[in-house]
Amino acid sequence: MSRLLLNCDIGESYGNWTLGLDAQVMPFIDCANIACGYHAGDPSIMRKTVSLALSNDVRIGAHPAYPDLVGFGRRSMACTPQEIQDLLHYQIGALDGICRAQGARVSYVKPHGALYNDMMANPQQLRSVIQAIAAYDRGLPLMLLAMRDNSAAQALADEFGVTLWFEAFADRAYDPEGRLVSRQLPGAVHHEPQRIIEQALTIARGNPLTASDGSALRLHADTLCVHGDNASSVEAVQRIREALDRQATP
Amino acid sequence: MSRLLLNCDIGESYGNWTLGLDAQVMPFIDCANIACGYHAGDPSIMRKTVSLALSNDVRIGAHPAYPDLVGFGRRSMACTPQEIQDLLHYQIGALDGICRAQGARVSYVKPHGALYNDMMANPQQLRSVIQAIAAYDRGLPLMLLAMRDNSAAQALADEFGVTLWFEAFADRAYDPEGRLVSRQLPGAVHHEPQRIIEQALTIARGNPLTASDGSALRLHADTLCVHGDNASSVEAVQRIREALDRQATP
Amino acid sequence: MSRLLLNCDIGESYGNWTLGLDAQVMPFIDCANIACGYHAGDPSIMRKTVSLALSNDVRIGAHPAYPDLVGFGRRSMACTPQEIQDLLHYQIGALDGICRAQGARVSYVKPHGALYNDMMANPQQLRSVIQAIAAYDRGLPLMLLAMRDNSAAQALADEFGVTLWFEAFADRAYDPEGRLVSRQLPGAVHHEPQRIIEQALTIARGNPLTASDGSALRLHADTLCVHGDNASSVEAVQRIREALDRQATP
Amino acid sequence: MSRLLLNCDIGESYGNWTLGLDAQVMPFIDCANIACGYHAGDPSIMRKTVSLALSNDVRIGAHPAYPDLVGFGRRSMACTPQEIQDLLHYQIGALDGICRAQGARVSYVKPHGALYNDMMANPQQLRSVIQAIAAYDRGLPLMLLAMRDNSAAQALADEFGVTLWFEAFADRAYDPEGRLVSRQLPGAVHHEPQRIIEQALTIARGNPLTASDGSALRLHADTLCVHGDNASSVEAVQRIREALDRQATP
Repeated sequence: MSRLLLNCDIGESYGNWTLGLDAQVMPFIDCANIACGYHAGDPSIMRKTVSLALSNDVRIGAHPAYPDLVGFGRRSMACTPQEIQDLLHYQIGALDGICRAQGARVSYVKPHGALYNDMMANPQQLRSVIQAIAAYDRGLPLMLLAMRDNSAAQALADEFGVTLWFEAFADRAYDPEGRLVSRQLPGAVHHEPQRIIEQALTIARGNPLTASDGSALRLHADTLCVHGDNASSVEAVQRIREALDRQATP
Repeated sequence: MSRLLLNCDIGESYGNWTLGLDAQVMPFIDCANIACGYHAGDPSIMRKTVSLALSNDVRIGAHPAYPDLVGFGRRSMACTPQEIQDLLHYQIGALDGICRAQGARVSYVKPHGALYNDMMANPQQLRSVIQAIAAYDRGLPLMLLAMRDNSAAQALADEFGVTLWFEAFADRAYDPEGRLVSRQLPGAVHHEPQRIIEQALTIARGNPLTASDGSALRLHADTLCVHGDNASSVEAVQRIREALDRQATP
Repeated sequence: MSRLLLNCDIGESYGNWTLGLDAQVMPFIDCANIACGYHAGDPSIMRKTVSLALSNDVRIGAHPAYPDLVGFGRRSMACTPQEIQDLLHYQIGALDGICRAQGARVSYVKPHGALYNDMMANPQQLRSVIQAIAAYDRGLPLMLLAMRDNSAAQALADEFGVTLWFEAFADRAYDPEGRLVSRQLPGAVHHEPQRIIEQALTIARGNPLTASDGSALRLHADTLCVHGDNASSVEAVQRIREALDRQATP
Repeated sequence: MSRLLLNCDIGESYGNWTLGLDAQVMPFIDCANIACGYHAGDPSIMRKTVSLALSNDVRIGAHPAYPDLVGFGRRSMACTPQEIQDLLHYQIGALDGICRAQGARVSYVKPHGALYNDMMANPQQLRSVIQAIAAYDRGLPLMLLAMRDNSAAQALADEFGVTLWFEAFADRAYDPEGRLVSRQLPGAVHHEPQRIIEQALTIARGNPLTASDGSALRLHADTLCVHGDNASSVEAVQRIREALDRQATP
């Protein structure tokens, strides 16, 4: 089993407002998806977050969003393909600028919130995102949702020479296609730590999950999305980390 | 005589609002100070402006500002030295991201409006700006106001290994120290084209200007700041360009 | 024939950026739809615009929008019904505050751009807008698009006791249902002044227009939307004003 | 002894970010200084905050700020007197709009952060604030810092017919003039609950405090500024409330 990376949204404070237990969760993750100022993260927060990632030897990812601070980037906005590319270049570049001042670099891209959801729902938008990354630096992988069938996304990425990192969730129920069950529905989010760890291990081993209709769902995942929102989610990350490390040890 | 570069603020449109005759003035300048989103210039405007600069073979400079869109970056804001550095890294990086997607790079930095004025008035702030540039890329020159005595600024720049590009104005009156006479005072701005061209040539030749008190003022200038606001200022730029080119021809 | 009011989007400048010939068009209109800061119009622009409207004895309408300055309020945003109501109260109140300082009041509401389009396309959103106005002041009419069949909108308005002012366009082609033909299609916008004036008079007389499929389309309109973008549109407004005035004279 | 009102900054959350224990502190205060969107407080937060104030029978005050979300309104900005007035009208009006939809009204004004500090330091700015309130509604009191000598502020307010509500602090040390000792200095902020309650009672009784140089300082205060930042500050407010109520009972 190749190592399953843990990725986490980080740096989502803004000005005087604090969100997330960044310092607590950072030691347990591999990849920090750092907000770039459009949904969260001002330049000073970004500097502190990059510094925290570097001191924990965590990969730095750009976490760009729609320009919607008050909506935290969670509201879909009708942007043109060109606008999508432009706002990605702006935000990735801004984070890269903050990194550069600390001798670091952005090493992957994961769109945030509604921008991520729209990219998964709309092939034209996925194309815009991939095209934007290719123009910026084709060496930056794009992180996106692992589905039952990733072939369309893979074909697009291959066209532009961009690497995809597929992510899965240990705390979410899946539908048969590998989409996340809507949070509005019962059972969409797992809360019991043991169940979350089980699902993480199942994904890490490449074994099939059980989808919402009872069918087997095998996801190819490079990384697992975890959360540092509060003490209990940080504890879950720590336990996932430990379980994965135990398993990885021969 | 070494060549006196013409620099101009460019890309100061925003969203649906247009400002400045960028396409008309670009052919006559050497250095485009491109707004980075904090006082003007959204990602799409920035892309178009970078593209225009590249097609005219014009150097691209970052033109960062205080975060004050409604005030166009013209109002001083009480930022800490650290905040100054962070907002510079963010904005320079953002423009560099837009450039990178077009195979280009930011090649110098000129702060905008109140950030520029505060940097000239306050040595601590000048230090923050220079320090920020050194951390980002010590190969990027900083553009700032040529004064009678540039030694303090030069010493600071030398401390960090940053190059300074001193700029002068062909359409402004100077006080004996080499500061611009306030626009509130009569005679502060020259409007007659012939006088503007004369002053440009005087600066280019390294000859002394006559300061507001009648004293001789010799400015060492690497570049001349010109304006693309309207048809008559663009025409002035064209005539300055032609006068400088004529003079440079042996 | 009752008098057909002319309404115009006004006050869409922002900070250092100017848009529209507000002072030129104001003498010819009855209703000024004044931007409230979310897509255009900062507090100082709003003050000047209210003052201009008052000195021309023009009714002041709130022109609220999605929070999208860079997109000029033209991009649909996935806001909840509650968010729609909140942002309407904020913006109407803000303009009312500016008015109050000049002894005036907002006297109607016309949503802007994508907020307007979404309200016309989505009955749930129209309900949110009407509900918001009713909670604020049921004496404020809502301006919306006159269609062939306005009965659903009218029923909603009646439920909340809000008055509707239906608006028509003299320079746009209509489909058989009374929707504006998309600007993407040929013939969507009339440019010949004579045709625009004819359509204005036809609407004012309550006579049917010819829809895009050749069918007759009778619109009940209280007001006509005109534009102050440039010299030729201002001239068209003046000519429409004169034609309507001539006709109104017995 | 007339009743000493307790005022508290409230509604300083924004979008997805939460700040302050508004629901916990609201039962113990008389006056809620509600953020108006420029330093904190989006329209939905404002609606919830107004609703919370109304259900606790707490007076609603506008808490306007410089337009500086990322700096939380704590950074001085070089605004003109006219800009100050305009941004006050916009923000007071916006909160009044939110109030109006709930059948309520703004009943006083307290500038926030740097806007408050600049108003206290600069008589021209105090004049702008008072003039803005007079133009909006001369029935709205302005809350400002009680000093040893309030005569200049009082004379300005009298000129415009605006009422002043002077506020004092139970947890801050004062200099001999009645200015707050800078937080940078040792002893500037009291942390011991007993001392805070003592100072509150001293102020309520109209007895003199001991200033930082040992001199007696008598402040005329209409209201005491309290804080709902965290559990211990809320507990302090509750204890101040109880102490004041006990004392007020004959």
